[in-house]
Order: sequence, then C-alpha cells, then structure tokens
Amino acid sequence: MQGTPKPTAPPSGAYAPTDRTVPTRSAKRASYDRELVHAILDEGYVCHLGFVRDGAPVVLPTLYGRVGERLYVHGSTGSRPLRMAGQADPGLPVCVTVTHVDGLVLARSAFHHSINYRSVVVHGTAHQVTDPQEKRAALDALVDHVIPGRSADSRPADAKEFAATAVLRLDLEEVSAKLRTGGVNDEPEDLSLPHWAGVVPVRRQYGTPVAAEDLAPGIALPDYLAAL
Amino acid sequence: MQGTPKPTAPPSGAYAPTDRTVPTRSAKRASYDRELVHAILDEGYVCHLGFVRDGAPVVLPTLYGRVGERLYVHGSTGSRPLRMAGQADPGLPVCVTVTHVDGLVLARSAFHHSINYRSVVVHGTAHQVTDPQEKRAALDALVDHVIPGRSADSRPADAKEFAATAVLRLDLEEVSAKLRTGGVNDEPEDLSLPHWAGVVPVRRQYGTPVAAEDLAPGIALPDYLAAL
Repeated sequence: MQGTPKPTAPPSGAYAPTDRTVPTRSAKRASYDRELVHAILDEGYVCHLGFVRDGAPVVLPTLYGRVGERLYVHGSTGSRPLRMAGQADPGLPVCVTVTHVDGLVLARSAFHHSINYRSVVVHGTAHQVTDPQEKRAALDALVDHVIPGRSADSRPADAKEFAATAVLRLDLEEVSAKLRTGGVNDEPEDLSLPHWAGVVPVRRQYGTPVAAEDLAPGIALPDYLAAL
Repeated sequence: MQGTPKPTAPPSGAYAPTDRTVPTRSAKRASYDRELVHAILDEGYVCHLGFVRDGAPVVLPTLYGRVGERLYVHGSTGSRPLRMAGQADPGLPVCVTVTHVDGLVLARSAFHHSINYRSVVVHGTAHQVTDPQEKRAALDALVDHVIPGRSADSRPADAKEFAATAVLRLDLEEVSAKLRTGGVNDEPEDLSLPHWAGVVPVRRQYGTPVAAEDLAPGIALPDYLAAL
C-alpha cells in the first residue's frame, strides 16, 4: 500500500458500522453518515491521536487535515508515533478523535447534566506517506484545515523542511460520529425544583489577529483571516 | 487500594518526569509544574480518555473533574471503559489528555505554522471508586468543573442514579504539561516575504444562556452563569 494512493470512496452514503464503532450505550446518538462525519472533521484542526506504546495507551493532541476519505497528521520525523509508524507495514494501529463542544446542558438534577457535542472517532492503521505528491497535498491540507486558503499564501516547504516532516495517513473506513443536541431531559417530578435549567451555548471564538512586530510594511490582513 | 482514599500529595512542587512524560522533541515546551498542571486541568472539563481494547487504542471524549491530586471520569456502569476498569485491581491502564487551543500562529513559511496551546497528559491506571463518600465528592467535582458552583444548585443523585453511575479515579502521578506560547518563528531569510504573519487568538466563548421552555416561573439566571 505504501506510496500507492488508492481511489477514495464516494463522498455519499454511510460508513459501515463495526463492532468497535457501535457504542455500548446511547446508541441513538451515533451516526455513520459520511457527510456529517466530514462536516465535523472539517470544522476542526486539532485531533487527539491515540496509539499503544509498551502495551499502554498514549493520547496526544495534534493537527490533522482531511483529503477525501483520508486523514493526515504530521510531525517531526523524530516524534514518537511517527517513528513508530515507520515506513514498514503493517503500520501503527491508531484511534483519532475529534470533538466539538456546542453547549452546556444544565438540568435540575445533577444526574441529567450533560454536554451538547459532536465527535468523530476513527479507528484504523496509520501508515507513513512516502509518495511525494500525496505528502505535499497532505501538508497543504494540514495548513488549510486551520486557516482555509492559507497554504496558497505562504512559502511552501523547501526540500530540507519537506524531508524533516513525516506525514501519517489514516483511511476513513471504520468511522463513527456521536452527537448530543437539544435541551434538558429532566425527570417529570423534578420540573418544579427551584433550580435554573437550560443550555449555555459554547463556541470557538477568534480574537483580533495580532501582526508580527517584524511584519514587512504594506502587508494587509488577508481576507481569509478577516472572515474567521 | 480500593475504597481507601489515600492522602493527596502536597499542592506545591513538580511531578517527577518519567520515560513516558519526557517528550522526544520540543522538550523545552514540557513542564512538570504542579500549579501549571492544575490550572490547565481546572480550565477544562472535556478530556480525551485513551485505553487499550483488544490490543488497539480507543480514544473517547468524556467529562472529568479534579479533586486534589486525583482526576475523576464518570459514565454509565454499562459503558465500555468503566466496565473494563471493573472493581478489581489492577485496574485499567489509561491516558487522559486535556488540550486548550490559545492561538493560530501564521508564519511566512508553511513549515513554521503552529498552534499556541496548553495541554496536560496523564498516564496511569484507573480504578473504579467504591467508597460512597469519595464517589459523591467526585460527582460534585464533575459538575463543578463544567460550571463552578453548580453542584450546590441542583438535585443530588438519588440512590438509583448513584448506583447507575460508575466513577473512575486516576491519580496524578505521571503527569506532564506541554505548551507553546508567543509569536511567529520564521527563518530570517523569510521575513521579507509578502505573506501576512502573526497570531490569531482563539478562545472559548459562552453564548447567552437559553432557559428551558418549562422552567418554573420566577427562577432567575444564577450569578455563576451570568459570570461565565
């Protein structure tokens, strides 16, 4: 498989549930809808990458990008998971999770407090990307995931930087989304309790961009940043 | 150890680095400072919990709370990691990671793009909490982590709810923080390139609380919500 990009799956339909992607509880919150999964992934840029080291789990935050039915993460060629994935099959078993918090759900009862959220969990085996063209596209996707349009407005990696960066690929095959939306689910007998109940929306907010002190004169804030 | 809360470590000093908590790269971004770790943990409420199932990693988002030198996560007694931890030693090896994104760092070069962030990674073995008093305190901490002061303004779990909820404890022993702060680190020869460079602040924002439609009349928005 190394260095041989295979055709991506069609962007419609749903992922096939597997033993690992069917939750043991709250099954009604699970979804395998491809468009929903893509939307949740595309709204974020920091994932939590899990792998096993010496039999124990390790979870690290890292940037990611999506191209079609593939996720990419990157790092120094010296970093632990990237070294562990190496260039040899069978690759590194990983779990990549992306979570957005949308609201705090305050019920009258402590028990029914909850969070409105959307998450995606991807199980699979990560492989180092060896094809230069795929690697270049993945690096662009990683930058554009954080700031859409930015990869075209920055100096691309030179040969040395390109060689110092390792990229892992994870196919979107064993994938599920999980989400909670809506309001409070209190017990009927709790509705008259003297506690405020409702939802506090939570969102990601961008502040005013702060230009580098040594920014060359005459460079205006680009439109793609003003639009954030 | 089960059911016998041990004294918590003093809140000063630093965690002892271990093989797992010393990063293979960017070591200057790592910290073992106890106050810093506590501050990062206390600012959040969603962690990413990693464990190993059938030899493969699983990473799930879940709520957490901190009491002294212990983290707590909770869930249905039927949920997978909580069943796996069970009530028997040696418990469940886990990795709990909490990440805050503080800014997008836009360099002139794609290579030097980065994220300002603060994260904490905790390695250890999770055990089910069996002591009722500790479990009750943990459930309060879980609610108060999301909304400080809320546990005192809600109906506590009744016996049935209490029994249906499992709580896992993870001691803060093998812990590290990692953070990036500051501005852009471009190569000197890139400073005159015609690309905007700087930092876009990112923060968590709370919207206006939306009261439940069936909220009993006369219940005002509590101060702890107005202060969010």
